[in-house]
Order: sequence, then structure tokens, then C-alpha cells
Amino acid sequence: MLINCVAYQNGVKLADLPIDEISDYLGRPDCFIWVALRDASDAEIDKMQEEFGLHDLVAEDARHGQQRPKIEEYDESLFVAMHMVKVVDSNLEVGEVSVFVGRNFILSIRNRSDQGFQSVRDRCEREPELLRLGAGFVLYALMDAVVDRYFPVMDDLETQMETIEERIFEKGSALANIEMLYELKRKTAVLKHAVTPLMEAVGKLYGGRVPPVCTTTQEYFRDVHDHLTRINSAIDTMRDTIGTAILVCQSTVSVEQNEINKQLAAWAAIFAIATVFTGIWGMNFKFMPELQWGYGYPVALLVIIAVCGFLYRHFKRSDWL
Amino acid sequence: MLINCVAYQNGVKLADLPIDEISDYLGRPDCFIWVALRDASDAEIDKMQEEFGLHDLVAEDARHGQQRPKIEEYDESLFVAMHMVKVVDSNLEVGEVSVFVGRNFILSIRNRSDQGFQSVRDRCEREPELLRLGAGFVLYALMDAVVDRYFPVMDDLETQMETIEERIFEKGSALANIEMLYELKRKTAVLKHAVTPLMEAVGKLYGGRVPPVCTTTQEYFRDVHDHLTRINSAIDTMRDTIGTAILVCQSTVSVEQNEINKQLAAWAAIFAIATVFTGIWGMNFKFMPELQWGYGYPVALLVIIAVCGFLYRHFKRSDWL
Amino acid sequence: MLINCVAYQNGVKLADLPIDEISDYLGRPDCFIWVALRDASDAEIDKMQEEFGLHDLVAEDARHGQQRPKIEEYDESLFVAMHMVKVVDSNLEVGEVSVFVGRNFILSIRNRSDQGFQSVRDRCEREPELLRLGAGFVLYALMDAVVDRYFPVMDDLETQMETIEERIFEKGSALANIEMLYELKRKTAVLKHAVTPLMEAVGKLYGGRVPPVCTTTQEYFRDVHDHLTRINSAIDTMRDTIGTAILVCQSTVSVEQNEINKQLAAWAAIFAIATVFTGIWGMNFKFMPELQWGYGYPVALLVIIAVCGFLYRHFKRSDWL
Amino acid sequence: MLINCVAYQNGVKLADLPIDEISDYLGRPDCFIWVALRDASDAEIDKMQEEFGLHDLVAEDARHGQQRPKIEEYDESLFVAMHMVKVVDSNLEVGEVSVFVGRNFILSIRNRSDQGFQSVRDRCEREPELLRLGAGFVLYALMDAVVDRYFPVMDDLETQMETIEERIFEKGSALANIEMLYELKRKTAVLKHAVTPLMEAVGKLYGGRVPPVCTTTQEYFRDVHDHLTRINSAIDTMRDTIGTAILVCQSTVSVEQNEINKQLAAWAAIFAIATVFTGIWGMNFKFMPELQWGYGYPVALLVIIAVCGFLYRHFKRSDWL
Amino acid sequence: MLINCVAYQNGVKLADLPIDEISDYLGRPDCFIWVALRDASDAEIDKMQEEFGLHDLVAEDARHGQQRPKIEEYDESLFVAMHMVKVVDSNLEVGEVSVFVGRNFILSIRNRSDQGFQSVRDRCEREPELLRLGAGFVLYALMDAVVDRYFPVMDDLETQMETIEERIFEKGSALANIEMLYELKRKTAVLKHAVTPLMEAVGKLYGGRVPPVCTTTQEYFRDVHDHLTRINSAIDTMRDTIGTAILVCQSTVSVEQNEINKQLAAWAAIFAIATVFTGIWGMNFKFMPELQWGYGYPVALLVIIAVCGFLYRHFKRSDWL
Repeated sequence: MLINCVAYQNGVKLADLPIDEISDYLGRPDCFIWVALRDASDAEIDKMQEEFGLHDLVAEDARHGQQRPKIEEYDESLFVAMHMVKVVDSNLEVGEVSVFVGRNFILSIRNRSDQGFQSVRDRCEREPELLRLGAGFVLYALMDAVVDRYFPVMDDLETQMETIEERIFEKGSALANIEMLYELKRKTAVLKHAVTPLMEAVGKLYGGRVPPVCTTTQEYFRDVHDHLTRINSAIDTMRDTIGTAILVCQSTVSVEQNEINKQLAAWAAIFAIATVFTGIWGMNFKFMPELQWGYGYPVALLVIIAVCGFLYRHFKRSDWL
Repeated sequence: MLINCVAYQNGVKLADLPIDEISDYLGRPDCFIWVALRDASDAEIDKMQEEFGLHDLVAEDARHGQQRPKIEEYDESLFVAMHMVKVVDSNLEVGEVSVFVGRNFILSIRNRSDQGFQSVRDRCEREPELLRLGAGFVLYALMDAVVDRYFPVMDDLETQMETIEERIFEKGSALANIEMLYELKRKTAVLKHAVTPLMEAVGKLYGGRVPPVCTTTQEYFRDVHDHLTRINSAIDTMRDTIGTAILVCQSTVSVEQNEINKQLAAWAAIFAIATVFTGIWGMNFKFMPELQWGYGYPVALLVIIAVCGFLYRHFKRSDWL
Repeated sequence: MLINCVAYQNGVKLADLPIDEISDYLGRPDCFIWVALRDASDAEIDKMQEEFGLHDLVAEDARHGQQRPKIEEYDESLFVAMHMVKVVDSNLEVGEVSVFVGRNFILSIRNRSDQGFQSVRDRCEREPELLRLGAGFVLYALMDAVVDRYFPVMDDLETQMETIEERIFEKGSALANIEMLYELKRKTAVLKHAVTPLMEAVGKLYGGRVPPVCTTTQEYFRDVHDHLTRINSAIDTMRDTIGTAILVCQSTVSVEQNEINKQLAAWAAIFAIATVFTGIWGMNFKFMPELQWGYGYPVALLVIIAVCGFLYRHFKRSDWL
Repeated sequence: MLINCVAYQNGVKLADLPIDEISDYLGRPDCFIWVALRDASDAEIDKMQEEFGLHDLVAEDARHGQQRPKIEEYDESLFVAMHMVKVVDSNLEVGEVSVFVGRNFILSIRNRSDQGFQSVRDRCEREPELLRLGAGFVLYALMDAVVDRYFPVMDDLETQMETIEERIFEKGSALANIEMLYELKRKTAVLKHAVTPLMEAVGKLYGGRVPPVCTTTQEYFRDVHDHLTRINSAIDTMRDTIGTAILVCQSTVSVEQNEINKQLAAWAAIFAIATVFTGIWGMNFKFMPELQWGYGYPVALLVIIAVCGFLYRHFKRSDWL
Repeated sequence: MLINCVAYQNGVKLADLPIDEISDYLGRPDCFIWVALRDASDAEIDKMQEEFGLHDLVAEDARHGQQRPKIEEYDESLFVAMHMVKVVDSNLEVGEVSVFVGRNFILSIRNRSDQGFQSVRDRCEREPELLRLGAGFVLYALMDAVVDRYFPVMDDLETQMETIEERIFEKGSALANIEMLYELKRKTAVLKHAVTPLMEAVGKLYGGRVPPVCTTTQEYFRDVHDHLTRINSAIDTMRDTIGTAILVCQSTVSVEQNEINKQLAAWAAIFAIATVFTGIWGMNFKFMPELQWGYGYPVALLVIIAVCGFLYRHFKRSDWL
């Protein structure tokens, strides 16, 4: 589905184009074309391949979707695949955006995501002196938008982690905590798959040999790289913390077990001693003088209660009960 | 066993050759020969070594099989060893394919695998303009076919992982889950042995210094490398997840143990209190007035039932029963 | 909030400047300006950007704060972001300092931290022959001050670790220890986030190609790098030790459990044997000669006590009690 | 102890030499000397150092033994230290072989190992066209022999691993399995110490800058490197598998514990209910009508048996017994 | 405290010098001065800094001590910091030695260690042809001495590890073993801190670009590097083994727990069945014929003993007792 197809000249919007006129404008020296598609059909991709002369392999990639984030150079043009990650009902939904960048055009195809880039286009059109930098700057602006949307996702994961940490030493919640930690670890893996390969790829857009379309905007890509490094390092820390937290949960289970066992032992001892006493006075020996006493029975009950009470206090004090 | 031996000229099939005529065609300038063997005998390999002038060491490798995936350069020719992995009855079967690539020939020997490459040959013959690129393109087409067959294997492993995850917090299934996780980890190791060394080797077929037969098809090899990277990273994630899942299983066992112990303790307490009461009224004191009452016995039973019932409710409420 | 704005010439303080005169002094050949801000407002940053011609992206970074420690080169100038870590009530508080270094100026902006750099300025003014080295030396002096403040933090963490280690094999303290270890691990992560990226960045200020402002002070930056390496390696060791210590705590819990179970078993046996004996003499057989004996009862009690005593001694000896 | 000392010319054996004539033959242009020692005495090493002009440090190394596998270049000559690993009574015995390679000589000293290299010499003498390649080829042949002997060791370890895996989920064998896994891990460490450093060292004998004696046989060393890589990767996989297997064993112990606890709880319940019933009918209330019934006793027994039987079936069904 | 201050010429001792004459001898072309200090005071370091023209930063380092092992190049001179590790009462004591090497002098300062270098000086003076190589060789000799002293420390740790391994599967010793393993791991960390950074630093003293004072002795430094690599790899193996060993200890605790629980269950069953029987015959039913039998009581006792004995044998056989 076509969203926009606009020609710019010297950083200023020239016209909304019908797709078929793209090739006319591509020839003009100062002209620059920016096309945005969403959930593009094969036919649309074929059309684009023809207009912009895309390589077979990248067109293939765009048709199939499900790319790893990557940046590939084809002669003068660049193919960029990025993941778009969004929190929906505390799950992570992953969409994709493929960006094809040439000397004087940029084509973005967004798949399975409702997060658009209108705001990027607006920002670029408001800053013609930057838009004049051409395709490289628009690529930066798109990347910056994609990467900026990773931060709230990371924040969401960190909030979840904090929720777990607040109750990690609570008794009885170990299994629920482990379940949440496992879920959280899976989410970090999803985000990491979006961030790490992109980070590695963006690292090649500044510093050393740089694709021609990016040379004038290297410092911007370094900024994107820096953001990705920050998220990546936050993810790594969280993954490490999750590992430790699972160990902690396992320990709380074992400690709880010890407490249960102690209580079990203490009550067993109290009841057992009472049983022994009643057993003794239940024996059938002929000469058991206390059985004949008038107050034998209440005294016996008192003795039993006293012994049990003593044990109870003893266990209470040594923290077994 | 010979499967095919075909000469091509300018991307078009010329003729099916008997093996002995190979050397005649090898001399022709535009000619290109593609031979496919399956479970080759030593005699066949000797014959091929003679016809194509293969190096002793690679002929040796082909005879022994059991290679690590690798790509080795010998002067102008290339030796490629790949693993073919297939799911058979939820086990992974590993076969091998050795490919010898020269300036104007390609020889593939497939061992212990029933996954053929007829479809690759058909595809190449349908696209003469690509086949005209020569041995490098055929090598790419073979690799692409091998690598594409890793994806369903990976999908199968991921399906198994999901099956385990669905019941990972179910009680009593911990051991079965761990057994399946252990099995799954072994399968990932098999797939990783096929993928990782090949990925590293293919990474040298584009970008920097590249073997002569691959120079015109670098972008294709980058595509293969990208696919291998994707599988490799999926395997790594799965291996990490398996480790965490085993920890989770261990935790569920411990949590279950706590629950068993709590029940044990609760029932022990209930029975013990009943025993103490019957013990008390079983004592032989002379003056135990309640023993003489007409309703002493039923009242006693009621007292015992009431106390036990009270304890039962107490344990139910505190979730021990 | 402006803290200082001073012009130096040949290492000697020239004058305290009002902000508006900065540009006048920047032009003078031997002059060097050192400005220090604290929790700078956007307006102040805008002013500074104008005066010193800072790049949009770094000004943006300074406005937002929350940078990873990093060193970025912009043409002739350098942007350095560092974390300032401080122990407050046994928690770690993290502030930031952003430093902008040009050929003849240095601007530091400190955020969310009350640890000032007056001592650095004093030290520099006392050593005019070093201050004459210019912006590179002041940058070193600031870095050195920041890094030196990591050492007491590390010492504090090591003291906590030692406290835990002293009681790591104490019974009953496992959960408290694990809680402290978990807390400690989080703190090491905070410190590591300050140290490791800075270490990597500083490693590029000496040896190979070095930013122009740092060329004359390379040996000083190597010294800073060496300090950071030392802290970094101490953190890594501590993180590894924490992992082992958690395993140890888990083991003490299990060992304690064994001891509890042994005690439980031993007391259960003692009471059970007594119960069996009282049960036997409580049976209603007509002919049980010992029941008729005059000393039957005390003998029975003695037998019971003797058997229980014997068991008690047995368990004591085999260390179950 | 001298085993062989032979001079070759153009790949053909010339003569068995006494040690003292070595220097005479070393001078001849096409001549090549191959000396083999076993458990050499210090005197023999001194003699060899003198004859071949070995560097002090390598002679020192040869005297002390206990080297890490390594390859060191000294001007025109090469010093190679390798471990020889052998399975003896399911233990691994480690010997060493030190090889000194010069332009026209090769000296091998074998220590603490009864695995000789006569077969290597025979093979070389049978292939004069290869032996003519000189010291580099003999070095390859020796290395190849050493490395080929690692494979049966690895196979042995894998057989042991499979034995353990067959019974890893068997109850009661956990401790024995862990013991064997621990033992196996130690053996993999021994083999890894032989393989990994050698692999890294051999990686420098082909491809980039290569020591002069190895230039003509680079492809052979790549083959050795490939074999070492294969073993190394098999070891790494095994070590990882052992780690997982120990986790699995720990889990089986915990699962078994749960089963024991369930049985304990079930039997405790059955006996306790019986005790309560006997206690009830053992009470001394005056009016307990059932005690007077003629069939009271058998009915009581039946009731007790029925209740216990019901519980038993209940526990059987819920898999606690 | 000054230990030695000697001037050498052409590898031969010239004279013991008073400190103040150092500068006189430094000027002479073939002369070489070797100074050794121990626990040097600040005044002594100031003096040395003046005599040898040491850089401020290294003098600072020498004053503070507590360096990481490192090798730093300052123009023509070299600063080397090494740790000296010694076993004292089964603890590791760490001292330091700082070595300053110039074109024609070497200065060593030893701190907090009683392990001197007189033997090194003696060895050097005995080999004037090596001593003639100058400062580079003396540096090697000192390093070699320091590194050689790591081996007995490593041996000591390995002996401790073996002691633990001998009893690792013994029952009841798990906690003591874990305590020793934890202690051992800390010691390996201490040794690793001495070895690993030094290994990395020494790796730069041969092969590529090498500091001028070391060029003639590269092969000697390669030998030192080789020794350090060996120790480093032994430490890594041991750390890995310790991790596995702790897992093993945890498992023995769990297995022991299972055995305790089995015993507990078995004895509970035996006593419980006896209690049930005594309870039955203690019931007050009017018609219980066996109670009237003359041999009822002894028969009852026999029945009880028989049943208990049967259970006992049953548990013995199934290995629960």
C-alpha cells in the first residue's frame, strides 16, 4: 500500500508523485525522491524494483520479510533492514522496515507494524537545510525514529524487572517470579535480536570506509550507534541480572523448605511427647500408684500440657516455629 | 554412483557426457562441466581426481567423509564441504556434500543423504543468463539449496521448544521436560556444527580478497552468509533459552517438593492430634469423670472430629492442603 | 548554574570572565578558557553552544543527560561524558559530567552530583607548567579526579563482600547473605557501567592515532587508562566471586536441610520406640505376667528411658543430633 | 636413547649414520638428516645441540620437558612441542615429542610415551617424491601422526559419554553418573591442553607469513589444522554437554527426592489413620456400645483395613505410591 | 633500603657504587648500572628519579605501590610492575617489584616481599657474555626469576585441589569441601591477577614492534611469555574445575539427603506398623478371643517382631536402610 511518494529539490518539497513518474524525476540532477510503502504487495515491490533498479536479492528479501537487521551495500545503493518492536498487552510485537537508499532516492517498506514515519517526514520537511544533505540524512532520521522507539520498550522491561525484584524475597512467590523472569528473558532476546545486529551494522556507517550516501552524515550515525550501544548494554545487564535472580528464587524455595521442615519437626516432637505420656498412663500394670490418686488425671493432663508448652516455647525461641 | 555429468556452453546444456569424455570438454574455452555423484566409491573418486586434477588431500577428504564444513582454496580451485541435516522421526540425520569447483567445472559428491540437487540443476538450466556466470554461480546455487534446508530443521527444533515451554510450569512433568530439553540441546549442537563453520567459511567469499571463481557472485554469497548468520543466531538463542529452561524445571521440582512437604506436615498434625486425644481417654486413671458420662463417647468423638476439622480448615486456608 | 568561567594565559590565571566575554578571549592566540557549569539549564547550554560553536548532537546530549560514558571527536574538539559514582547510605548515586574540549577552551557540565572539581582547578593553578599544556591537561586532570573517586566506591563494595564472606558459612544466614549478594551484584553493575565504556574510550587517547588536543598528554591518559583497567578487573573478579558465593549459600541451605532432617529422623525414632513400648504394655492380653509384678511399672519406665537414652547416645555419636 | 639417525638424498635413504658423522653430512647440499631420540639423556641433548646448533632456550626446554604444545621459530629453524595422548586403562597418559626442524635436518625427541614414529618413517621412505620436499614434509608427517592419534582418544571419550547418557535418567545412579562426568571433564581438559595450543600454533604454518621450511607444504599443514579444529570443536561440544548433563543429574536427584517424600507421606497417612482407629476403640469410656457387640472386634479390624485400603488405592491412583 | 648499586662494563662487575656517583657512571659509553632497592622510602625514590630522570607518573606509581602488573614504555625507558606471590601458611602473600629499565641502567624496587634477587645477580655475573647484552637481559633475568616463582604456587594450589578431589564424593564432607573450593578459587584469582596482565604485557616484548632495550633479547621474552601462558592456562583450567567441583558437592548433599529421607521413611514405617499392632490389641472390645489365650501375649510380640523384621529386611534389600 503506497503511503507517500514525494519529490524534493534542495530540501524543499516539490510535488506528490504518482508512482509512474518516479523515473522522470530520478533523472533530474538536484531532485530527490522519498517513497513510503506499507505491507507492500509483490506487485508493488516489482514496480519499485523496476523504477529504482533494485538488485534481485534485496527485492527477494523485501518480498519475504523476516530479515535479520542488517545493512548491505550494493554498488552505490544501500539496503537497510530494521526490526520495529512495540509493547502490546505486555507482549512484544515485532514488525519490520526495509529501507532502500540510492544517491537520489529513499524507499521505505514497513511490514506488520502500525508505527508510521509521518513524524519523521514532518521533521525533515521542517528542516530543509538538513534535508538538503539528501538520502543519507533521511536514512538517519528513519533509523533514529526506529531506535528511539526501542527505549520505551526497554523501560517497560526494566519496570517489569523492578516489579519482580520488589517481591523476589517474598515467601511463596518463587514460582510466579521464575515464570515472570523466564518470560522477561524471552522478551529481552526479542529486543536483543532487533538491537545487536543493527548496532554492529551501524558501526560501519562512520569512522572508517563509509558507503558514499552516508559520508556527510557520519556524526549522525555515530549518534544512532551510541543509542544502540546504550540499549544493548542495558539488555546485557538485564539478562545477567535475570540469571542471578533465578538463582535467588531457587534459594528462597530451599530456605522456605527448611522452614517448613523445621515446623514439621517441631510439631511432630510436641505431639509425639504427648502421645508417649498418654501411652505410659495407658499401660496396664497393676501397680501404678498415680492412677489411683484422686487428682491423678488432672495432674497428668497438666503434666502433658506443661511438657508440650515447654517444648513449644523452646521451638519458638530457637525460631523453629 | 554417477547421477549426472553434463556439459554447458554459454549457460545452455550441451550434452550428457560419459565420464571418460570429460577431459575432452574441459579443454574447450567456453565449456563448463557439472558432475554429480552420490555415495561415490573410491574408484569413482580416483577417476574424478584424474579427470579434474584434484589435489591429493581433498581426494583423501572426499574418500573419508566426516569433514567439518569448510571451504579450502587450492590454487585456482575450491573445495567445499557441507553438512546436510534432515529431521527423520524427530531425530537429526546428517549427510555430507563435497563440492569441487574449478574454473570450468563443478563436481559434487553427496554422501549418506537422500536429499538430491536435481531442483538446483533445473533452476540453473531455467536461468541461462545466471548459469553463464559459471562455476561460481552453481556453487552458490548448491550452497543456497543446502542452507535453505536448514530452515525447516530449525523450525522443527523451535516447535519442540514451544511444546516444552507450554508445559514447563506443569507439576510432575519436570523430568520429562528436562529429558526433552537435553535431547533438544544435543540436536542444536548437531545443527550448530553444520552451520557455524560454514558461516565462518562463507564469510570469506565476499568483501575482501575472494577466490577467483567467486568474484562475480560475491553478492550471492553474502546472501548465503546472511541466511547462515540468521540460523546461527537462532541456535545460540535457543541454546541459551534451554539453559534457562532447565533451571526453571529444577525450580518447579523444588517448589513441588515444598508443597508435598506442607501436605505431609498438615496431615501428620491432624492425625497426631487425634492420636493424642484417644491416648488421653485411653489412660487408666481411676477418677476420670468424663469416662462415666452416658454421652462421653460420642462427645469425645465429636471433640476429636471438631479439632481435626478445625486444623484441616486452618491448613486449607493457609494453603498447606 | 555557572560555577566558574576563567581565562588563562601561559598557565596563569588571567581573569574571571562574564559569560558574554568568552568569545573575545577565544580569539587571543595564547589564551585558554575554562568554564564549569552545574545542572545547566537549557538556556545556559544554548549560550555555551553559541559561544564555543558546539555541534548540535553534543548539545542535545548535554541537554538530555543520561549518556553512556564516551569520548567523541568532532573535528578539532572532543566531547567526553563520564559518570560520577558516590556511596550514599550504602547505595550508589550516579551523577554525570559532560566535558567539551576545544583547542583553547574546556567546558564541564556537572549534573545530579554534589562532587565538585574545585580541587582540580586549584591543583592546575598551582602547576602552571602543566596547565600550560592546555586543554588536554585539564581534561586529564578532570578525568583523573573522576576516576580517583571510583576507588573508594570499589573499596566500599569490597568491604561489603568481606562482611558477607565472614558469615557465608554461618547457618541460618543464607537468605540474608543471598539478599546482600544480589544487592552487591547490582551495585557492581552500576560501577561497571561507569568504568568499562570509559576505559575503552580512554584507550584511544594514547598509542595510535590520538585526537589533536591529547597528543602532548598521552602518557597521562595511559595512566588514567591503567587506573580504569585496575578497577574494571577488580569489578570482574568481584562479580565472578559473587556468583560463586551464591552457589556456596545455596549449598549451606541444603546442608542445613540435611541436618534438620537428621534431627527430625532421630527424634522421631526416639519417640516412636517409646510409643511402641507403651503400646505393648497397654495391650489387653489376659496373661502378661510383667503387668502383675510389683515393680513392673517402674521397671517398664526404666526400660523405656534406657532404650530412648541408648538411641539418643547413638544419634549423638553419629552426629545426627 | 638413539632410535634412528639416517641421511637422505633426493628423497632416498643414503645411510644409517653414527651420531658423530652428522656434521659431515649436514654440509652436503642435497642431503637431509633425520634423527629420532627417545627419553633423551641430558648428554644426548647436549650432543644434538652441538651438532645442529640449537638455541640454548630450546635445548633447555627439551631437557625439562613438560612444555605446552607450541611452535617457535628461531631464525631458519623451528621448534615444535606436541603432547602425545593415549588411553591406558581408561585413563589418559600424556607423553611429549619435541621436534627441531632446520633447513636440512629434523630431530625428534620423544618423552614418556611408547608410541613410536617408525610407521611415519616407513611411509616417508615409500614416497620419495614427497620426502624430497624435505624437512617441512617430515614435520608434517610427524604432526599428522600425532594428531591422528588424538582421534581414537576422542572416540573413547565419546563412547564414555554415550554410556553415561544411556543411564542418565535412571534412578539411583545420579551420583555414579556425576562421578563419571567429573572424571570425563578432567580427561577432556587433558586432551584440550594437547589440542588447542597446537591448533593455534599450526594455524600460523599456512596462509600468511610462513616459516621458510614450511612454505612448500602449506596445504598439508592446513590439513593438520583442519583435523585439530575438528577435535577441538568436538571437545568444546562435549564439555558443554557435560555441564548440561550434570544439571540433569542434579534434577533426577531432586525428582527422586520428591518421589521418596510422597511415599513417606502416603505410608505415614495410612499408618496414622489405623493408629487413630485403634486409639478410639482403646478409649476407656464406660458406654461404648460397639465394644460390647459380638462381632465388634472383627468389624473394627475390617473397618481399619478398609480405610487403609481405600487410602492405599487413592495414593496409588494419584501416583504417590 | 638500598640493597645493591653496582656498575658493570662489558658484562663484568666494575664497582659497588655509592648512590651519589650513579650519574658519573651513567655517562660512560659501555657502562651499565644495576640498582636494587627494597621497600624504598619516598626520599630514596626521589633520589632515584633525579639520578635516572624517571617520569613523574612512574615515580608516583612506585611511591604508591599496588600496581596492576604492567609494562609501560616512556621514550627510551621501560617501566615494569610485577606481583610476587608466595605461599605462607597456605595463604598467598602478594608483594611487588617495580623495575625501571633504561639504555644503560636497571633499577628494581621490591615492596612487601622477602623474596630477593641475589641469585639473579649471581647468575648474571657468572655469564658475562649474556650480561653484555645489557639492560634487556637483566630485565629478562628478573622476570624469569619472578615467573619461575609462580610455578611452586601453582603446584601448591593443584595439590590442594587434589586433596579436595580425593574426598569430594565422601559423605558429610560437602560443606568443608565447598569451603575449601571457595578459598581455592580466591587464591586462583590472586595468582591470575599476577599472571594474566603480565602475560599480555610480555607478549609485546617480542615479535612485532619491540621497545629498543628488548630487541636483542626477544627470544628470551618469548620464553617468559610461554611460561606465563602455561600458568595462565593451568589457572583457567583449575577455575573451571572448581566450578564443576562445587556442582558435584551440591549433588552429593542432595544425594545424601535422599538417603537420609529413605532411612527416615523406613524407620517410620517399621515403628508405625508396630504401633498399629499394639493399638489393635489394646482395644477394649469385649470379644477379642486372642486376648484370652495363654500364649496370646508372646505370640503377639512375635508377630510384631516378625512384621517389623520383615519390613526391615525389605528396606535393607531395596537399599533404603
